[in-house]
Amino acid sequence: MNKKNNIDIEFILVEPSHSGNIGACARAIKNMGFEKLAIVKPRKTITEEAFHRAKSAKDILENAVIYESFDQAIEEKNLILATSARERTIPWPTFYIDEISEEIKGELKSEKTKSAIIFGREDNGLSNEELQKCHIHLVIPTSDEYSSLNLSHALQLVAFEIRKIYLDNNVPISEEKDLVSNLENEKLLEHLMEVLKKIDFYDPKSSKQVKTRIERLIKKIRLDKMEMGILRGFLSKIMDFEK
Amino acid sequence: MNKKNNIDIEFILVEPSHSGNIGACARAIKNMGFEKLAIVKPRKTITEEAFHRAKSAKDILENAVIYESFDQAIEEKNLILATSARERTIPWPTFYIDEISEEIKGELKSEKTKSAIIFGREDNGLSNEELQKCHIHLVIPTSDEYSSLNLSHALQLVAFEIRKIYLDNNVPISEEKDLVSNLENEKLLEHLMEVLKKIDFYDPKSSKQVKTRIERLIKKIRLDKMEMGILRGFLSKIMDFEK
Repeated sequence: MNKKNNIDIEFILVEPSHSGNIGACARAIKNMGFEKLAIVKPRKTITEEAFHRAKSAKDILENAVIYESFDQAIEEKNLILATSARERTIPWPTFYIDEISEEIKGELKSEKTKSAIIFGREDNGLSNEELQKCHIHLVIPTSDEYSSLNLSHALQLVAFEIRKIYLDNNVPISEEKDLVSNLENEKLLEHLMEVLKKIDFYDPKSSKQVKTRIERLIKKIRLDKMEMGILRGFLSKIMDFEK
Repeated sequence: MNKKNNIDIEFILVEPSHSGNIGACARAIKNMGFEKLAIVKPRKTITEEAFHRAKSAKDILENAVIYESFDQAIEEKNLILATSARERTIPWPTFYIDEISEEIKGELKSEKTKSAIIFGREDNGLSNEELQKCHIHLVIPTSDEYSSLNLSHALQLVAFEIRKIYLDNNVPISEEKDLVSNLENEKLLEHLMEVLKKIDFYDPKSSKQVKTRIERLIKKIRLDKMEMGILRGFLSKIMDFEK
């Protein structure tokens, strides 16, 4: 893969239960020219079996980042993609892995983007709460009869398609966007909720739904740094005014 | 997958050494809507590990065909594709798995085609002799740095791409071709060599090269049944004439 490309993309496994799978994922990542593997709370330690199945990708395994929580894993990211073998009922921006929009492709290729592609647990995937913390849902097309792929196979297919995007010179790299990280979004949400409470618009006890909807809205807008500055300034002004 | 499609495609593993891999292949085949797994001389029996890794594709594993030899596996086939993680030096019709020609796509979709996709040994792939018995070589694009994929991962990627061909209504099904099986080609080769010996064109002791080149030529032409009839008739006439 062309080294000039942004390959700063992290493949994140959430609570994988089979150590062998983790090794197979490391190998798949390296086969496709990527480098970064991360794991949220592995349910088993990385065993000999993992190293055996990683074959010549032991370096990927050795350098794997371990996160204490899902939130920690996505904190610094500004493009978070969740994978799933089936379409969910949650209305969310969703693409088949081989039909990702040109806009998202351009972002993936940008050096300004800190991307994560997230893979759920072998037994029950990602929770709805986790899915709603991601910007985009990716669906792997499968047979209707049997849609549940092995974890490392799912990662292999996704990495294969993402690699194509990086190598496709027809996809323009989106350089203009300077999107904020997930952590900055979380801070905006806190700030906004504080303001809403202060102006008596929102009672955390009675309307948990309001916070959820605003959280989703912030995810969808995908603010850049300048927009974030304006919004935070606006919120601070309201807080001052109320005093 | 649409049942009207030709899904009579056999995924053939040549001498796989890891039973777990066989199970993972069965699962990948079913995930992509296919049904047929075959194995040429498995180096280990199909163990509990294979069934464990097949998960809900145990039926694919139970119905797997076991062949005694590579030649037996391809005998009845008339479209034989070999997979490889890298481009070979042998000059042969070769496609990346996501850039298969429209002609071959059309054949794959035809009910007249008996297709096989062949996967080599985990440790050293397919031999040159085996590769030359296939019509088409398929290459999986990978990183230059580390091109060797896990067997079941390779199969997963190939099955994913072949499934797209079946589901793509823009690919016209090639119905006009009625290609002969590999066994019929072998018989033609024997017949031809017999004639060449008879007319003193060919001495099997001194020119083994001639036979290899003719074998390759027959593979490349991909005769249909009518052409085969004409050629065999022509050869029989020469034999009679020489008497």
